[in-house]
This record gives sequence, structure tokens and C-alpha cells, in this order.
Amino acid sequence: MNPALVSARARGLTPYTPGEQPQDKTYIKLNTNENPYPPAPAVQTQLRESIAEELRLYPDPNSTQLREALAGHYQLTPEEVFVGNGSDEVLSFAFYAFFDPHNGPVLFPAHTYSFYPVYCTYYGLEYRKIPMGEDFSVRLSGFSEQDTFSGVIFPNPNAPTGIAISREQIAAFLGSARSDRVYVIDEAYVDFGAESCSGLVREFPNLLVVHTFSKSRSLAGLRLGFALGNPELIATLFTVKDSFNSYPLNRLSQQLALRALENKSYYEKMQEKIIETRERTVDRLRTRGWNVLPSSANFIFASAPGIDGGTLYSDLKQRGILVRHFNHTGIKEFVRITIGTDEQMDRLLADLDALYSK
Amino acid sequence: MNPALVSARARGLTPYTPGEQPQDKTYIKLNTNENPYPPAPAVQTQLRESIAEELRLYPDPNSTQLREALAGHYQLTPEEVFVGNGSDEVLSFAFYAFFDPHNGPVLFPAHTYSFYPVYCTYYGLEYRKIPMGEDFSVRLSGFSEQDTFSGVIFPNPNAPTGIAISREQIAAFLGSARSDRVYVIDEAYVDFGAESCSGLVREFPNLLVVHTFSKSRSLAGLRLGFALGNPELIATLFTVKDSFNSYPLNRLSQQLALRALENKSYYEKMQEKIIETRERTVDRLRTRGWNVLPSSANFIFASAPGIDGGTLYSDLKQRGILVRHFNHTGIKEFVRITIGTDEQMDRLLADLDALYSK
Repeated sequence: MNPALVSARARGLTPYTPGEQPQDKTYIKLNTNENPYPPAPAVQTQLRESIAEELRLYPDPNSTQLREALAGHYQLTPEEVFVGNGSDEVLSFAFYAFFDPHNGPVLFPAHTYSFYPVYCTYYGLEYRKIPMGEDFSVRLSGFSEQDTFSGVIFPNPNAPTGIAISREQIAAFLGSARSDRVYVIDEAYVDFGAESCSGLVREFPNLLVVHTFSKSRSLAGLRLGFALGNPELIATLFTVKDSFNSYPLNRLSQQLALRALENKSYYEKMQEKIIETRERTVDRLRTRGWNVLPSSANFIFASAPGIDGGTLYSDLKQRGILVRHFNHTGIKEFVRITIGTDEQMDRLLADLDALYSK
Repeated sequence: MNPALVSARARGLTPYTPGEQPQDKTYIKLNTNENPYPPAPAVQTQLRESIAEELRLYPDPNSTQLREALAGHYQLTPEEVFVGNGSDEVLSFAFYAFFDPHNGPVLFPAHTYSFYPVYCTYYGLEYRKIPMGEDFSVRLSGFSEQDTFSGVIFPNPNAPTGIAISREQIAAFLGSARSDRVYVIDEAYVDFGAESCSGLVREFPNLLVVHTFSKSRSLAGLRLGFALGNPELIATLFTVKDSFNSYPLNRLSQQLALRALENKSYYEKMQEKIIETRERTVDRLRTRGWNVLPSSANFIFASAPGIDGGTLYSDLKQRGILVRHFNHTGIKEFVRITIGTDEQMDRLLADLDALYSK
């Protein structure tokens, strides 16, 4: 093929590599932070009652009902809610909408969601990685020390570490932050024990909180994310969306997500169960001498004494368990392990014992 | 809000305006080229049998099974097939991937799908509108006359005119076209009587054919589009997709589209029925003195003697029928009318008679 057929910007891309999604169902998947429990029962009911004939019509391009329901859930108005095709799409639109290449680099933590640098390259943005604390925590002061930047993004809890920052600390940070820059907090994992900053979006018109149905709502297969923020930020996201794809959310996803929001107590119980399994797993690994970072997410970031993370990953894969290893300087000894059911974690521990205890 | 919060490029956007999607179901919707018939029966069966628990897992990011099925349908390999969240997303990725701002403007017909200039602005591309023939046909020679351009895109049949170009003419045009530019043919409406160029993608490695499940497959609510082309063009689209959103196609859409492809004869019959209704409607309008452009699509572009298109639109809306009017110089007298069922078209004709015959 003639290389001139590909645009210069497309030639410059290094795409994000998602965790393995083997179609072979024999693996225990602890690698992409999916939820081990099914979505709320109302989702199955809605699925069974869905009418194929309605699919002949375009969906509501504004996802009005779903945004109304989310607004109710977070005590906001629908004008403060944007929805998209997974939080990845919402984040992508936010990079386009709020980070201006002329204003300097985008700031994010040194170890974080590895899609952020990919978005930067995609949109022609520079970025700067802010060093972590020695305990692998996100240092908010590291952002404050920068003079020139187009915006800030970090997950809370952070990935892949799982470490959370308190809402109080974030509010203090935003209180002294630049009012002419947008701060995006990616709360994909917030429901597993961290504090959401959704209640801060009225106080800080430059705060965008991004969330997803993929983790705590057990609907990764549905592709549904959302953002909460000032109505003008949200209106800008709509303008961007309507310049890219008017209808990114299909009818079924809108209906099913709406039903999921009805089952609040089901999800609260499920989230508590996952936290309980996580704490049990952390204890058992620490007993075996592992270094496990304190997690407020549905995964843990952990290293075993004297075993490289890459070895852990491949040894476990050989035994039918998938975990995630990031071959990045500074975190090579770690693996990220999704919290599954108690049975799955028992199996993980048994396999680790079989592999490494003498 | 501080205006500095929005990036310069986002401030410069003029979003696409989709046709009205009233949630009020009393309207006869002849405005967004949806199919009046339900999708294939296998789609309803699949929907009823779908298992909510599977939604806890991410979808296959590469839509492997669906691409295999589409490859079979078009006698290509899966490496020649890309799928996306509606053909709008596929087109958007193609603009990013293949049209380089440094190479000059994107060329498209003067009257065409009004998302094309929106994509251009979104990606910082210039564009040039190529004048139509006097009969509102797309003039391929108009593209050949240009020296400097980054790429070419046109729908076949064109929208909103419905006029098609033969595959033979397109092959001749591509045979003498620049081999260092990509030519995108948007075949959203091709199944209603035009000739697909899918069979030309091996002969022309710079041809991308884009298609959708929204029209001829009656699945606008599912958001599913695809592109056929040289494996290197397709690989580039994957790189772009994986720099934007790894999983734009949810599990249900992948499964349901797969089932839709099984019911070829159902769809062929449905498409014939729509063509028959279209021809009947064209005849009846022409009998009443209307100018109706020759359509190979599931819509017609037509003007009434002495009545402005805007008036037609609002008079019909008042009577509960939605059609689409484009307030653009050169086509203001026209309305675009989607072909519905025979009953819906009878109702349209009766309302037109009631409105305008003395």
C-alpha cells in the first residue's frame, strides 16, 4: 500500500493495549477489573422484554431518560450529566474539549491509566508525568508545582495502584488550583471504598468527574460511561459528541443502564462483598510476605518477595489465571489482580502456594 | 464559566444536527431514513435469549465473529473488514486516518451528507464542495479536475438526492484517480437499488467502502456500521479506534448484528418491498406535478410546484408527519421523504392532497 494513504497523525499513533480478552472461557479472568457478579436482576428482565422492532429507530441522541436517572442518583440536574460509549469515550471527548495543545502539557501521575498518554498523542497534546510519592500515592502537590499545563487528570482511586485520596484533600487542592484549567477525576473504581467528588462539581465549575457502569455496576459489556460537571462543561461535551457521532449510545444500552440504576441496594451489597473479599485476599497475601498497596478499588496491586511481576503473570497464566502485568519502569515487580469471587481468590492463593512455597 | 476552560478547537465546532427524534410516538417518522419494517426475526430470538450475566465482561474489542460473518457476506477476509459504533463513527475514524490536513482540502459533492463538513472542522481539515450536475447528480469529473486535495468522499447513492452512480463509472473513475489519496464511498443506502463497490476494494487499495446496519438492515437503534477495504487501510482504522476507545461495540450489538446477517432472504424481500413502495410514491407525486429526483435509496428528494420546502415541512409536521428539510441554498425547495410502509405513504399523499389541492 502507498504509505501516503495514511495521515501523518495516524502514522504517529501508538494505540492503547487493552488487557487480554480471550474468547476461551476456561481462564479465571482477574486481569481487566471486571465484576465477578452479574448485573442487577432488573437488567435481565429488561433484556427479556426488549422489543427488536424498536431497534429499527435511532436512539435518543441525548439519552434524556438515562441522564435524568443519573441526575437523580447523584442529586444533580440532567444538564450536569453527560453519557457516552464507555468512560473511555467520555474521557476521549474530555481531552479534546478541555485540554488545549497551546496551553502546555496535560498532567497526570507517573503510574496511572495508560490510555491517558494515548489520548494525548491522538489529539496532538504534550503530557508530563508527575512523580508519585514513595508509597505510590498520587501527589496533588506535584500538580500544584507546575506553572504551564493544559489540564490535569487522575483516577481516584488511582489505577493500577488502587490507592485513593480523600474528598477533603481533593477539595483543598481544587480550592487553590487554577480556575482557568479543567481538572478531570476518573472515578471508575470509586464505588469500592473511596469517596466520590460528584458532590464537588457545583463548588468547582472546572471539575469534571467521570464514572462508568463497567466496574461497580457489572456492565462492562454494555459500554456505558458518564461525566458529571458544570452545565457548560457538559454542553461542551455534547458539542464534541455531536461533531463525532450523534448517536454513540444504542437503545439497548440506554434502557438497560436505566434499569440497573433502580437496583441500588443490590449493587451496594455486591460492592460490600467485593471489599470484604479484597481485604481477606490482602491479608492472606501479606501473611505470605507480599507487598500489597492499600486498595480502595476492585483490584489490588501487589508484588511477591523475590519474584518478578512478569514471571508471576506467566506462571499464573499457565495455570489458567489471568492477571495484568505492566512492563513499566518502577512497577515491573507488581501485578494487578482483579478481585473476583471468594472461590476465585481461594484458587489464586492455592495456585500461588503450589507455585512458590517450598 | 471561565471561557478558557474550553479548548480553542472545541470552541470552533459547529456540531451536526440530526433529524428530529421526538420521543412522542404519534408522529409518522419519514425524516431520518429509518426502515419501516422490523429487523430479521433472528434478532428478536437472540434478544430474548441474551444472558445479562455475560454483560459483566468486556466485549471482544476486535469484533472477530462479526467481522468474519461480514467477510463471508461480502466475499472478503476479516482483515478487510472494520466495524464501528454506527457508520458515523467509522466515517469519523476514516477522516482522521486518511485525510491529512497538510495535503489540502477534502473533496465532496456540494449537496451531500451534512456530517462531512462537521468531521472536517472537528479534525482541522479544509474542505471543498464540488458542484453537482444540473440534474443534481454527483460529477466524478469534478473530483478529477482538482489538483490539490487530501481525499475524496461521496455517498452512493448520494444523500439527500438519492441519485446513484453505476459501479462501472466508479471503477473507471478510480482507475484514473490518484493512487496516493483515499477515496471513501459511503454506501449507507446502497441496498435499495444501487450497485455496491465492495467488489472493487481488491482492485483499488485506496478505496474504502463504508456501510451501515441502520437502513437496509433495520437496526438504526443498534449503532453498527462497517468499512471494507485493503487490509492496511483496515489496520489503520483499528489503530485509530484503539487510540480513541478500545471497545466501541458492546456485546449485544455484536451478537444481534451477527444474527441479522443470517436472514439474508428476509432482508432482500424487505428491500424489494421498499423499492416497490418508493416507485409507487414517485409515480403518484409526479402525477401531481412534483419534481422527484430519480432515487436508488430508501428516501426521495422532491419538490412541489410553487410550494417552498420549509412550508411543506411545517405543514406536514402540523398534520403529524415528519419529513426533512435542508435550508441550504440550491435545495431549499426540496424535502427529503423517507419511504415508509404503503399505508404511511398513502397517508402522506392524502395529507398532501388535503393541504394543497383545491
